[in-house]
Amino acid sequence: MPKKVDHEARRTRIAEALWRVATVRGLDKMGLRDVAAEAEMSLGQLQHYFGSRDELLMFAMEFLRKQNIERVARRIASSGSPTPGARLRAIVREMLPVDDKAEAGSLMNLIFLLESVRSSDLREHAHGQALALRELLEWQITLAIEHGEITSAHEPRRAAAHLAALADGLRVGFHLGLHSPAEAIAVMDDHLDRLLG
Amino acid sequence: MPKKVDHEARRTRIAEALWRVATVRGLDKMGLRDVAAEAEMSLGQLQHYFGSRDELLMFAMEFLRKQNIERVARRIASSGSPTPGARLRAIVREMLPVDDKAEAGSLMNLIFLLESVRSSDLREHAHGQALALRELLEWQITLAIEHGEITSAHEPRRAAAHLAALADGLRVGFHLGLHSPAEAIAVMDDHLDRLLG
Repeated sequence: MPKKVDHEARRTRIAEALWRVATVRGLDKMGLRDVAAEAEMSLGQLQHYFGSRDELLMFAMEFLRKQNIERVARRIASSGSPTPGARLRAIVREMLPVDDKAEAGSLMNLIFLLESVRSSDLREHAHGQALALRELLEWQITLAIEHGEITSAHEPRRAAAHLAALADGLRVGFHLGLHSPAEAIAVMDDHLDRLLG
Repeated sequence: MPKKVDHEARRTRIAEALWRVATVRGLDKMGLRDVAAEAEMSLGQLQHYFGSRDELLMFAMEFLRKQNIERVARRIASSGSPTPGARLRAIVREMLPVDDKAEAGSLMNLIFLLESVRSSDLREHAHGQALALRELLEWQITLAIEHGEITSAHEPRRAAAHLAALADGLRVGFHLGLHSPAEAIAVMDDHLDRLLG
């Protein structure tokens, strides 16, 4: 009987190897060969799953996004049956580098962002992800306004753009050593308190 | 009589060539040789001014920063004798990609910022620049509180961190094609109106 290979587990192993290599060496200096070595497989085995560097990058971005969504879902589930405002807080909190695991994810996210700003292939993907996130925030803000948690003086799309930009900027500042995770959270909480105030 | 060389003009020409190369090719794929070619000088001539790639990058960052400061100074001067709140608006407005010139500067700034996140040499420099900017914002916020333009419910350092992070995040979103300069300005103006309200 031929050995059964768990393809999804392999792809995950490759994405995690990419993270480790990218955070140490930088994405631009990272080749498929390095990722294969880190994932303890041959280049040929890796290329069976990802034909090009960009394919691998996009999978790793998707992987990161799904992990974030799962963390948000767990946070919402553990908080009982929350209001739209509480859901908004849970989503935004997961966008900040709150612990070591989130920190590694946040750095990867920034590295992707850097690559996306100047690579048109990746930009389309990053643009789609960022847009989906902003729409999710906008939807929760609209519900929170209907729920009376946010005053209708706020325009949902603009408030969502504000939240997303603030989270991105706080992550940049954190990775530049400008502030601690606690300070980033304090800035965001202040903003949410005023928004949901 | 030996020909007199304007060294400052040459350094400026090199910094501007670096911008053009970096925005087209990306900073990581940019070598000193490319910058020399773009500045229409030999590699040896360029190396007379900048011995290493990092030296050149830091000069280009400083150059960018000084241009921003000059633009802020002009904006403040043209608005008569402004209050601290008006100065704050002028400074923050220059942090956003408001026109083509600012857009090129903003992209370079972003490329530096994201490059700094994973290069320890550049990070120190970027950290110093970002800290100086935040302190400038904090100082104007403190004055605006004394002037009665901002309520003392705001903590100056935290409000400054918020403004700086929001501007960085809005620039990321703009260069990802998430929103137009006008939308970025609208988000920032909303925030400033509430802060100075």
